[in-house]
Amino acid sequence: MKSIRRTAPRIADVAERAGVSVSTASKALNDTGQLREDTRARVKEAAAELGFVAGASGRGPADTRTYTVGLLTTDSFGRFTIPLLMGVEDALAAGRMAIILCDTRDDVLRERHYLASLQERRVDGLIITGRTTDPRPSVGLPIPTVYAFSPSDDPEDFAVVADEAAGARAAAEHLAAMGSRRIVHVTGPQRHHSAAIRAEATADALGEALIAPPQYGHWSEEWGRHAVDMTLAAHPDVDGFCCGSDQIARGVTDRLRERGVDVPGQVRVTGFDNWDVMALASRPPLTTVDMGLKTLGRLAGRTLLDLVEGEGEPPRRQVLAPRLEVRGSSL
Amino acid sequence: MKSIRRTAPRIADVAERAGVSVSTASKALNDTGQLREDTRARVKEAAAELGFVAGASGRGPADTRTYTVGLLTTDSFGRFTIPLLMGVEDALAAGRMAIILCDTRDDVLRERHYLASLQERRVDGLIITGRTTDPRPSVGLPIPTVYAFSPSDDPEDFAVVADEAAGARAAAEHLAAMGSRRIVHVTGPQRHHSAAIRAEATADALGEALIAPPQYGHWSEEWGRHAVDMTLAAHPDVDGFCCGSDQIARGVTDRLRERGVDVPGQVRVTGFDNWDVMALASRPPLTTVDMGLKTLGRLAGRTLLDLVEGEGEPPRRQVLAPRLEVRGSSL
Repeated sequence: MKSIRRTAPRIADVAERAGVSVSTASKALNDTGQLREDTRARVKEAAAELGFVAGASGRGPADTRTYTVGLLTTDSFGRFTIPLLMGVEDALAAGRMAIILCDTRDDVLRERHYLASLQERRVDGLIITGRTTDPRPSVGLPIPTVYAFSPSDDPEDFAVVADEAAGARAAAEHLAAMGSRRIVHVTGPQRHHSAAIRAEATADALGEALIAPPQYGHWSEEWGRHAVDMTLAAHPDVDGFCCGSDQIARGVTDRLRERGVDVPGQVRVTGFDNWDVMALASRPPLTTVDMGLKTLGRLAGRTLLDLVEGEGEPPRRQVLAPRLEVRGSSL
Repeated sequence: MKSIRRTAPRIADVAERAGVSVSTASKALNDTGQLREDTRARVKEAAAELGFVAGASGRGPADTRTYTVGLLTTDSFGRFTIPLLMGVEDALAAGRMAIILCDTRDDVLRERHYLASLQERRVDGLIITGRTTDPRPSVGLPIPTVYAFSPSDDPEDFAVVADEAAGARAAAEHLAAMGSRRIVHVTGPQRHHSAAIRAEATADALGEALIAPPQYGHWSEEWGRHAVDMTLAAHPDVDGFCCGSDQIARGVTDRLRERGVDVPGQVRVTGFDNWDVMALASRPPLTTVDMGLKTLGRLAGRTLLDLVEGEGEPPRRQVLAPRLEVRGSSL
């Protein structure tokens, strides 16, 4: 496995030698759990042969781990990082790992400083995340590393990512399945990776039901309202707004109501993100794509634990399928 | 000073002995900055006399610090913790301290587990925060501790808090100063400490200009809209809504517009929190109280650094005055 130093026998080595699972080996060495005495003895013998030193929760003199993980984000712990962070925490708590927080605020120098500091602290692992699914440069440190949500540009790195395109397709197909036939796509800036990915997938899924090119603008309610005015002028027969974010979808819904257009009776609307503050406060509440960020964080945390503890070889790339949350705006 | 162990001479001791500031002492020992040579020599002499061991950033064999701080929150890193966290990070970066993140999710057992783990890791200090200004039980550990936003119930503890009552008064007095004379206060649940504090301060500031008892409900836009309908029925001559949160104020503003009431022409509206997503998306944008959470976090971080480094005795209770952000909803 790339970039993981093995300085001492690990519990996985003991387990393999004794012909038991890692969890059984751990129980045997810690004198916990219900095991047959000969199993326990076999594990302890294997540990002795390998020079594995066990202590409370496996910590002993030979244990050079610090039980800390660095979590590096560019998102300033915003809307995307928080649920992800909660998932990571859930997973790492099981391994008694503490999380050191590093918010780079999109500053390359700050990132370099943090990475140096984390190495100096000899963290057991790194989780790298950000607010975009655009691949980022690999940090390339000799420490077990998992990229969460934001993959790296190195296919050899371990990454857990959301399938934005699948999410966009799910929303578009739902609109079509509910009966919308004249749909527009309103989204954020074209240069934004997520906007481009979602727009392309939406266009693919809708085919001729997409009656205009994607309308790129801003991730804001105001842009959603403005897009409604433009669309109603050009395509008064529109019957679906497939939006690139919940903020845009909320602006669309508000403006349609103000223009006397019934949602979902005359026009159906979908969002993206399942940001409760927007999706639930909308009238009606928004049908929207949930990328499952907490689940994604949990998966990233577990993957990192596996790497740190040398438990098998996780897949390099794990892709989480988003879920469509269906609410009043499209029914 | 309570609960701070002093195991080795500190740079403050060196500075005192040499008759210079701590920052000068630090520059002298690290051979940085522009100092007169005799000053530099005097500091080094003082350090030698005291047995102070300097290394890069003052780390030497005598340094038993771990340069880590535990940040414990009950807020699940929500809207209140994030700006605060950024401020704490700003301040602690100056002291090369890493932050270990502990999200208790309002669970007493989880909190106990985290506190034990942080002690075991020998963190240099603790910052305790949460989503309410209601005093919480003191954690009472022999580690330098600063309570941020959520004070403790022990007046001997160090706390940096926001003055919610002053914020509420500022909004109320602004409405009155702009000419509103028939004002209602719409806010969250009465059992919620912030709702009660803000309501009391609002009533005090407005006197007879408050034409109805505080309307307690929920921290939601929906409640704001509902409160408008009730208020217009009972007091059609209302000319000001002083709201306990931006979410409520946004609901109020939306509903007034839907009812054909001009904001701010006929009715002025104020919010509380300066939550950009709500305050700026509102039509018109909201005049609102900003508690300065990032500044508060920075102050808490600096106070903790002072405690850890033994630099003087900070005040036990530091109160930050909120700021009124004036926008279109009240002008």
